Amino acid sequence: MSNKIPVAVLAATGSVGQRFVQLLDNHPWFEVVALTGSDRSIGKPYGEVCHWLLPGEMPAWAREMIVRPSTPEAVQAPLALSGLPADLARDIEPAFATAGTVICSNASAYRRAADVPILLPEINAPHVHLIEAQRRLRGWSGAITTNPNCTSTGMSIALKPLQDAFGLKRVFAVSLQALSGAGYPGIASMDIIDNVIPNIGGEEDKVEWEPRKMLGTLSGDSIEMASFGISAHTNRVAVTDGHVVTLSIELGTRAKPAEVVEVLRAYQGPKEARGLPFSPNPVIVVRDEDNRPQPRLDRMTGSGMTTVVGRVRPDSLLDIRMVVLSHNTIRGAAGGSLFNAELIARMGYLGPQYTR
Amino acid sequence: MSNKIPVAVLAATGSVGQRFVQLLDNHPWFEVVALTGSDRSIGKPYGEVCHWLLPGEMPAWAREMIVRPSTPEAVQAPLALSGLPADLARDIEPAFATAGTVICSNASAYRRAADVPILLPEINAPHVHLIEAQRRLRGWSGAITTNPNCTSTGMSIALKPLQDAFGLKRVFAVSLQALSGAGYPGIASMDIIDNVIPNIGGEEDKVEWEPRKMLGTLSGDSIEMASFGISAHTNRVAVTDGHVVTLSIELGTRAKPAEVVEVLRAYQGPKEARGLPFSPNPVIVVRDEDNRPQPRLDRMTGSGMTTVVGRVRPDSLLDIRMVVLSHNTIRGAAGGSLFNAELIARMGYLGPQYTR
Amino acid sequence: MSNKIPVAVLAATGSVGQRFVQLLDNHPWFEVVALTGSDRSIGKPYGEVCHWLLPGEMPAWAREMIVRPSTPEAVQAPLALSGLPADLARDIEPAFATAGTVICSNASAYRRAADVPILLPEINAPHVHLIEAQRRLRGWSGAITTNPNCTSTGMSIALKPLQDAFGLKRVFAVSLQALSGAGYPGIASMDIIDNVIPNIGGEEDKVEWEPRKMLGTLSGDSIEMASFGISAHTNRVAVTDGHVVTLSIELGTRAKPAEVVEVLRAYQGPKEARGLPFSPNPVIVVRDEDNRPQPRLDRMTGSGMTTVVGRVRPDSLLDIRMVVLSHNTIRGAAGGSLFNAELIARMGYLGPQYTR
Amino acid sequence: MSNKIPVAVLAATGSVGQRFVQLLDNHPWFEVVALTGSDRSIGKPYGEVCHWLLPGEMPAWAREMIVRPSTPEAVQAPLALSGLPADLARDIEPAFATAGTVICSNASAYRRAADVPILLPEINAPHVHLIEAQRRLRGWSGAITTNPNCTSTGMSIALKPLQDAFGLKRVFAVSLQALSGAGYPGIASMDIIDNVIPNIGGEEDKVEWEPRKMLGTLSGDSIEMASFGISAHTNRVAVTDGHVVTLSIELGTRAKPAEVVEVLRAYQGPKEARGLPFSPNPVIVVRDEDNRPQPRLDRMTGSGMTTVVGRVRPDSLLDIRMVVLSHNTIRGAAGGSLFNAELIARMGYLGPQYTR
Repeated sequence: MSNKIPVAVLAATGSVGQRFVQLLDNHPWFEVVALTGSDRSIGKPYGEVCHWLLPGEMPAWAREMIVRPSTPEAVQAPLALSGLPADLARDIEPAFATAGTVICSNASAYRRAADVPILLPEINAPHVHLIEAQRRLRGWSGAITTNPNCTSTGMSIALKPLQDAFGLKRVFAVSLQALSGAGYPGIASMDIIDNVIPNIGGEEDKVEWEPRKMLGTLSGDSIEMASFGISAHTNRVAVTDGHVVTLSIELGTRAKPAEVVEVLRAYQGPKEARGLPFSPNPVIVVRDEDNRPQPRLDRMTGSGMTTVVGRVRPDSLLDIRMVVLSHNTIRGAAGGSLFNAELIARMGYLGPQYTR
Repeated sequence: MSNKIPVAVLAATGSVGQRFVQLLDNHPWFEVVALTGSDRSIGKPYGEVCHWLLPGEMPAWAREMIVRPSTPEAVQAPLALSGLPADLARDIEPAFATAGTVICSNASAYRRAADVPILLPEINAPHVHLIEAQRRLRGWSGAITTNPNCTSTGMSIALKPLQDAFGLKRVFAVSLQALSGAGYPGIASMDIIDNVIPNIGGEEDKVEWEPRKMLGTLSGDSIEMASFGISAHTNRVAVTDGHVVTLSIELGTRAKPAEVVEVLRAYQGPKEARGLPFSPNPVIVVRDEDNRPQPRLDRMTGSGMTTVVGRVRPDSLLDIRMVVLSHNTIRGAAGGSLFNAELIARMGYLGPQYTR
Repeated sequence: MSNKIPVAVLAATGSVGQRFVQLLDNHPWFEVVALTGSDRSIGKPYGEVCHWLLPGEMPAWAREMIVRPSTPEAVQAPLALSGLPADLARDIEPAFATAGTVICSNASAYRRAADVPILLPEINAPHVHLIEAQRRLRGWSGAITTNPNCTSTGMSIALKPLQDAFGLKRVFAVSLQALSGAGYPGIASMDIIDNVIPNIGGEEDKVEWEPRKMLGTLSGDSIEMASFGISAHTNRVAVTDGHVVTLSIELGTRAKPAEVVEVLRAYQGPKEARGLPFSPNPVIVVRDEDNRPQPRLDRMTGSGMTTVVGRVRPDSLLDIRMVVLSHNTIRGAAGGSLFNAELIARMGYLGPQYTR
Repeated sequence: MSNKIPVAVLAATGSVGQRFVQLLDNHPWFEVVALTGSDRSIGKPYGEVCHWLLPGEMPAWAREMIVRPSTPEAVQAPLALSGLPADLARDIEPAFATAGTVICSNASAYRRAADVPILLPEINAPHVHLIEAQRRLRGWSGAITTNPNCTSTGMSIALKPLQDAFGLKRVFAVSLQALSGAGYPGIASMDIIDNVIPNIGGEEDKVEWEPRKMLGTLSGDSIEMASFGISAHTNRVAVTDGHVVTLSIELGTRAKPAEVVEVLRAYQGPKEARGLPFSPNPVIVVRDEDNRPQPRLDRMTGSGMTTVVGRVRPDSLLDIRMVVLSHNTIRGAAGGSLFNAELIARMGYLGPQYTR
C-alpha cells in the first residue's frame, strides 16, 4: 500500500489543473486521490471530459478517475492543489480549510488576506508559518496558502538577492507575457497574430502589490510589506509559454552589474526550501549573452522552475537594468503550488503522518 | 513635361528603399529620376534585381529603371532619399552634399553631427535651418538631414506636447519592436516564432539620445539637447510592422491623465509642418480603449504617419504612463524621410525652382 | 435626397457583419438603412455594442445606428446582406424573402436547396435567374441567394477557365486556411501559435460539393451539378487573412502549363458580372514567381476581390498542379455577398426602381 | 576506459550538427571523438564558434572540443554522422568512405546513387546490406549511407504498412513544413509571419522519388524502385518543428479506414530495427481525435522518433486519406542518421570490435 500523501486537484480540467495532473505524475511524495470539476464534468471520467491541451499524453491513472464536485464532502484529503478561478475560490477554498484540508491555491482570491501567505519558498519560506495565525484566528484545521501571479513570480525571485544585498527603492517593470497565462481558450488568435496587446486586465495592480508582500517580513499574524515601490506595464505577446519582464531598479546602496550578477548567482534561498522535489536548482541562472533570456530557448531551464536573468547592466537613470524570464505555467502556476505543497509537508502542517 | 522635383533613391533595392519607391508612386511633388544599388545590381533593370517584399506590386515606372551606382557622378538630382546602411552612408552622403544634393537620410551615420538635424517636422521643423550652418561650415551646396531611429520616432512625437505643456524630467521607455525594423532578411524566423528577443543591438543608445536632440532647441549652429533623461529597454517581438513603446514619465509639473490626453489631442505641431503631402493628420490620435494601440489594428492610422497613443494613466511611481505606437517603416523610416524632403522643399533649401 | 438602394445588414456585429459595414462605406449604389444584432445588442447604438475588430475605424454613420432585431417587421429593405450563422439563417432568411427582401447570404443554410443559387458572378452569373424559380415555387416576392464557403470560392473561380477550355475530371484540393475564417473569437491562440490544425469541421464536405454546383449548369428550376470529382483536405494555419489551396487536376483533355496560364489570364467571366463596383478586375492574376501566391503579399490583389494563381506546372500523376489564393473575408465572404447584390440589382430582381 | 564506439560529427556547428551533438549526449553506444566545421571555426573550441540554437544547454563535453577540418586526415573514426550541405558532401563523404569510415549522412548528395541506401530502419533495414555492394564495387573499406529528406520520412513510414497489406498505386501528398527544416538562418521572419510560402525549392522532386526507393526492394547491387506514383505539393508554414503531410492514397486492393488503422497500429518493422537505442517505440501512433496530429502537441511523441498518423478516413476519389506528422529535425534528420548508425553497428559493418 502506498504511503504517499493523498492530494486532491481542484478544477482539474482547466489549464492550470491539467498542469497539476501532468506534474503530479510520478511525484515522489504525492498521490492524486481526487480530481474535481464543474457540473458539466462531475460523474464522468476525467479522460472523457478533459480537453487535454499539453504536449504529451494525459497520465493513464488520470484518464479513468471520475470527476467529483469541488466540495469537502466529496473530497477528503489533507492537501488540495487549487486551479479554481478567483470567484469560485472565494467560497470553496475556506470550506476546505474549515474541513481540515490545506489548500495550495493558484487563485488570487486570498492573496491579499493579512493571514494568508503568498509563497515562493526560495525567497520567503518562513511566511508559511502564517498558517498558524490562520488556524488560531479562523479556527481552521486546514489552511489556505497561495502562490503569486505568474508575472510577480520571476521578478520577485530575481529581486530578492538584490534586496538582501543592496536594498530596493524603486522598480520599473514591463512584462511581455505568454498566451498560456490567459488560460484556455484565452486570447483569440486573431488578437495576437502579427500583434501585441498592451494591457492585461488587473495584472498591473497585482504586479505592483504582490512582490512587496512576498518580499516583506513575517511579523506576528501578518506580513509587513516591503517598502520599495513598483511601476508596471503589462503586455501580451505571441509566445506560448514564458513571461519576460524588463526591470529598471533603484537600489538602496549603489552596486555594479558584476556585483549584482554575483549575488544573483550565489543566491540559494532559505534552507527549508532547498532539496524538495520541486525546488529550483539552481534558484537563478544568470546568462552572459546579450540577447538572453529568450522564452523558447530558456523557459525549461531547471525543468521550468529556475528563474533566468540576463542583460544585467547599468540603468541610465537608476542603478541596474536586467531582464527576467520565468515559465508562467510551471514556476508561475502549477509547479509553484506544488513546491508550496512540498514545503508545507516538510514543515509539518499536514500533520505528523504526512510530514516529509 | 513634368515640373516635378527630381529625386533619387539611394539603396533602392533594400527594404527602406522599396518603401521609398512605393510611397513615391504618384507623389504630387516628386518624380524619381534615379534608383541606385550595389555592384550586383548596377546596370540592370530595377524590376529584375529588386526582390520586392511589400504587399502590392512594384510601380510600373520603377520596373524598367536601370539601377545606377550611388555616386554623384551617376546621379544628378537636387534631392536624394537615402536608405543606405550607416557604414556606406558615412562616405556617400557627404559626396552628394558636396555635389549639391540635399540628402534625406534614414541612416544613423550623421545623426550625432552637431550641424545635422534629426527631423520630425511635426515636432521640430525649425531644426531644418541647421542646413544653413552646414552650408556655411562645410561649404556644401547640398546638405545632409536625417530622420531618427524608428523607435525614437513615435516616443519623441508623443513626448513633445507634454514637454511643451508640463516639462519633462525622466522617461522610462520599453519597446516591443516589429521585425521589419531589422531589414531583410533580418531576423531569422527560428529566432522569433514563439519567442521574444530581449535586445536590439545599439538601439538603446539611440533611443536614450536621439529624442533629447530632437526635443532640444536650435541655438546657433547646433542643437541644445533637452535636459530630461531616458532609460530604455528594447525588445523584438513577432510583429511585421509597428513599434510599441511603453512610457513611464516624470513631468516638470504634475498633470492628470485627462490633461495629458487633452494636450496630446490638441497638438498640431509647427505651422511649416502642416498641410504637406505626408504631414500626419492628425499628428497624434489618443485612443480611449484600455487595450490599444495595437500594431495590427492601429499602425495604418493616418496612412501610417500618425502617432497613436493609448492607456494614458497615472504612474504609480512617477506622473504618467502611456503606450505609443508608430509605423516603423512608414512614419519611422521611408515616410519620415519623405516628409522631411517636403519640408525642405517648402523651406526653399532645394532652390527657388523647386520651392513648393 | 439619396437615390441609393436601401440595404440592411443582418448580424452586423459579427465578423462578417463588420466587413459588410466596412465595405459598404461610400458604396456608390447602396446605403445602409438597418443593422441587426442579437438580443444583447438590440436597441443600443452599433458603436457601443460592436467590438470592432478590423484595422481602420468603424464608419461614422454606423456608430450611431440603433441595432434592430433580425425580423422583417423591424427591418424594411429591398435588399439584405446576411452574416447570420447557419442555424439562425434557416428561419430568418425565408421570413425576409417572404416579406419581399432579397437576401444575399454568407450562411450555408440554403446553399444545397435546389432553387437557391450559390453565386460567384464572375463564373456563374446566369445562376442568378434561379430567383425566378424561387418566386414561382415558393411564392416569395423576395429571394435567397448565397455565396459559397470561403475555401470553395477561390478554387472554383480558378477552375472555371479550365473547365471551359479543357474540361475537368478530378481535383485533389488541400487548403491552408486563415484564422479569420473561423470568426471571432474563433481559434484560440494556444491552438495555432507554432502549430497547424489539420481539420476544419464540416469544411471538406462543402469544398467537395459546392464547386460542383457552382460550375454546374442552370437547367430549368435547378442546377445540374458538374460531373467532376473533388477530394479535399482542409487545414488551419497561423495566417490572419487569405486562404491558400493547392490543386492537382485531371483535365478532360490534356493541356500544357502554358496553355493553362493563357486561359486563366484571358478569363473575363460573363458579361453581366463585369464592371460592377465589386467586380474583380482582373478576375484572375497568374503570378510567375515560383513561390507565390503568398497570403501576406497577395491577398489584397484587386482590393481583395481578385483570385491569385501561381505555380502552374505539370502534375506528376494527373495533368496540372497549381496554387490558388483568395481573400477569405473579402472575396470569400462579405465582398462576395456584396458583389452578388450588385449583380441582382443590375439584373432587375430588386424591382425597376432599384435596377442599376 | 570507455569501450564506446568513437564517432565524428561532420559540420557540427550547423543546425543538423547541433542536433547530433545534443542527441549524442549520454548515448549508450557512441562517444564523440571529433567535431568538424568550416575554416572559420577550425582550431577553436566548439563552445566558442557554435551559435547554439536549441533549447537546453550545449553538453559540457562539447564545449571544449577543438573544431577540426572535415578531412579523413584530421578525423579518424569508424563512424561519422554528417550534417554537411549537399555540395560539400559530394567530395568529402567519399573521402571518408575510402579511408574506412562509415558515413551516416543527412545530405542528399548520394541518395540517388544506385549502391547507396536511403535508410529508415523501421521500414527498410535490409537495404543496409547495399554497403556490401559499395565495398565491392567502389573498393571502399568504409561506406556511405543516407537518411531521406525530412518530408519523405514520415510519409514513407506511414505508407509502409499499407504497402505490405494492400499495395500502393498512387499517392497525392501535400506538406505543411516547419521552419527548422530550412536550417539557420533559413527562412526570414518577414517571409513567414502571417504567411505561407507555397513552395520549397527542390523538395517536390525528392518527395516524389525517395519514398519509392525506400519502399523498393533490395535486388543484387541496387534497389528496385517501388512502382507506385507520387504527386507532391510542398509548403512552408509558421511552425518551428514538425512536418505535417496530408495523403490521399489509391491502394492496390480496397481497404476500409478501420483496416488501415489496424495495420498501422500493428506495424513493428523488421526485427533488426527493433530495440536499438533510437528505435521508435512504437513505430507509429494513430490518433483517434479528428484534429490531430498537431505539430506542437504531437511532435515529441516517442521522443520525436515516432511517426504520428491521424484522420484516417475514406478518400472521396481514391481509397484512403490521412494526415502524417514527423519531427523533422529528430526522426527526419539527426535522430534518423543516429538510428541508421545503430543499425549499422548492430549489423557488423563497423567491424567486429564495434558490433553491438
